[in-house]
Amino acid sequence: MEETKEAVSLVVVGSLALDTIATPVATRRDVLGGSVSFACAAASFFTRAGMVAVAGADFPESGVEQFRKFGVDLHGLHKVEGKTFRWSGVYEQNMNVRRTLSTELNVFADFSPELPEDYRRSAFLFLANIAPALQLQVLAQIHKPRFVAADTMDLWIRTARDPLMKLISKVDLLLINDSEARELTGKEHLVQVAQQVLEWGPRYVIVKKGEHGSMLFSKSGLILVPAYPVDDVRDPTGAGDSFAGGFMGCLAASGKLTQAAVRRAMVVGTVVASFAVEAFGLDRLAGIARTDIDARGVEFLKMIKV
Amino acid sequence: MEETKEAVSLVVVGSLALDTIATPVATRRDVLGGSVSFACAAASFFTRAGMVAVAGADFPESGVEQFRKFGVDLHGLHKVEGKTFRWSGVYEQNMNVRRTLSTELNVFADFSPELPEDYRRSAFLFLANIAPALQLQVLAQIHKPRFVAADTMDLWIRTARDPLMKLISKVDLLLINDSEARELTGKEHLVQVAQQVLEWGPRYVIVKKGEHGSMLFSKSGLILVPAYPVDDVRDPTGAGDSFAGGFMGCLAASGKLTQAAVRRAMVVGTVVASFAVEAFGLDRLAGIARTDIDARGVEFLKMIKV
Repeated sequence: MEETKEAVSLVVVGSLALDTIATPVATRRDVLGGSVSFACAAASFFTRAGMVAVAGADFPESGVEQFRKFGVDLHGLHKVEGKTFRWSGVYEQNMNVRRTLSTELNVFADFSPELPEDYRRSAFLFLANIAPALQLQVLAQIHKPRFVAADTMDLWIRTARDPLMKLISKVDLLLINDSEARELTGKEHLVQVAQQVLEWGPRYVIVKKGEHGSMLFSKSGLILVPAYPVDDVRDPTGAGDSFAGGFMGCLAASGKLTQAAVRRAMVVGTVVASFAVEAFGLDRLAGIARTDIDARGVEFLKMIKV
Repeated sequence: MEETKEAVSLVVVGSLALDTIATPVATRRDVLGGSVSFACAAASFFTRAGMVAVAGADFPESGVEQFRKFGVDLHGLHKVEGKTFRWSGVYEQNMNVRRTLSTELNVFADFSPELPEDYRRSAFLFLANIAPALQLQVLAQIHKPRFVAADTMDLWIRTARDPLMKLISKVDLLLINDSEARELTGKEHLVQVAQQVLEWGPRYVIVKKGEHGSMLFSKSGLILVPAYPVDDVRDPTGAGDSFAGGFMGCLAASGKLTQAAVRRAMVVGTVVASFAVEAFGLDRLAGIARTDIDARGVEFLKMIKV
């Protein structure tokens, strides 16, 4: 979609959406959202992320400008005829429970991503939440990825289980929220949930528990990170994608996959997500700099250090 | 009730109960329970705890013997005519939701605790969950406590708010679970909940979040500790009391009230609670030694260290 010089170190595919969101605080229409938006914005504080997604003819130029400001590479963003993917949902009082009111796939229904040549040499790949078939299609185009992470959601667990299981068998890390992890595995306890997923292939599983933090399971042991306690949650949409984007951006920037690097990436992802929920859509992430993330990171480390 | 030599360093008052518990795993009748049982048993791994409670004529000698084995001082345990306090409850599939089926106060209806003379000089006091009026009565008998913690429950928030508020204004630490903290303060977000409680007087508030860990709020900052991920929860009853007992036992043993000491006590409480839920009643705590707690503590620290 445009020319830039710096090579991407992280490729992200996912949904690009215009969201209509009702929280107990407010209702907002056509908010820039989708998994790829949050993940790329979050990652962009740490590394050059390349976005693979599709926008409809109605996608606002201000959205594209927003991504440019974050420093996201947009060579993999395709603009096509038709309407942009739309999601609409409402949050209950405690912000932990949300109901999807509508999902319109629109241009994502026929999306067949073709990656720019330089993206295919990327070492780090994040397959953010989108149909597993699309995630597989992107994965197949990356020559020799060092580290591939994937996220998913209940919709695909219910409607696209076969491609999802194929995907899970091919990734290094599955990121998934707690309720979806239970649905996927049919197990209740998260330790057993994670053991099941690890048996399917991934080296790592991160179970995202929203305001209760995250857990990373692997053969090297368990890592527990609480959530940063946000005083005033305005819009939880994209928290998990921001966590994942911050996590992957941090890993891609360091280039290391040690247990210490993974742990640090979880802390970074937690902090980025804590900013994301403080305003609607990408508004809060757009208003902060890396120094803000670092400062909250120091504060957060004081809370959790032992 | 009996003679011992070693002075108590922690006095605990609370309910002594025979519980009937149904979990998805099993149902058990007349299980040794109540807040004072779990708290004293948990504390006894670290210090000499003195139990202030009342048992009915039907209280089994095996229960008394159990406490002796833990090393709990029983000078403050009164045995009287009538039936022991009984609680009955059922846990839902995920063990996070429980319903109280019945509560029979029995001998606790007329309990008026009189503390042994040496208990009155104790520096550490834990007012485990029981009617706030009883907690206040015990507190008034301690000459110069260095550190007083109190726990409570939804029943007292609803039926004994005045004495509860008086109690809260007099303690150093309020321990309370997340849903009860919200009910007590009428606020949703835990940061705001805690700020409200701190305004009422306590220097510290610990919000217990069950399988999601605990948060300690104070002017010195926030401490976040995740829960230890127990693979096979058999009976969550007493988890919070075991956490509190381990916490207070650890503090009383060290005699320190620094931020580091408080943080360590939270980790210890977390580990003790993780054992408690692995079997019904006190069964699991009765089967472990201090070395088991220390070993799991090392394992847990690896999971949460940053």
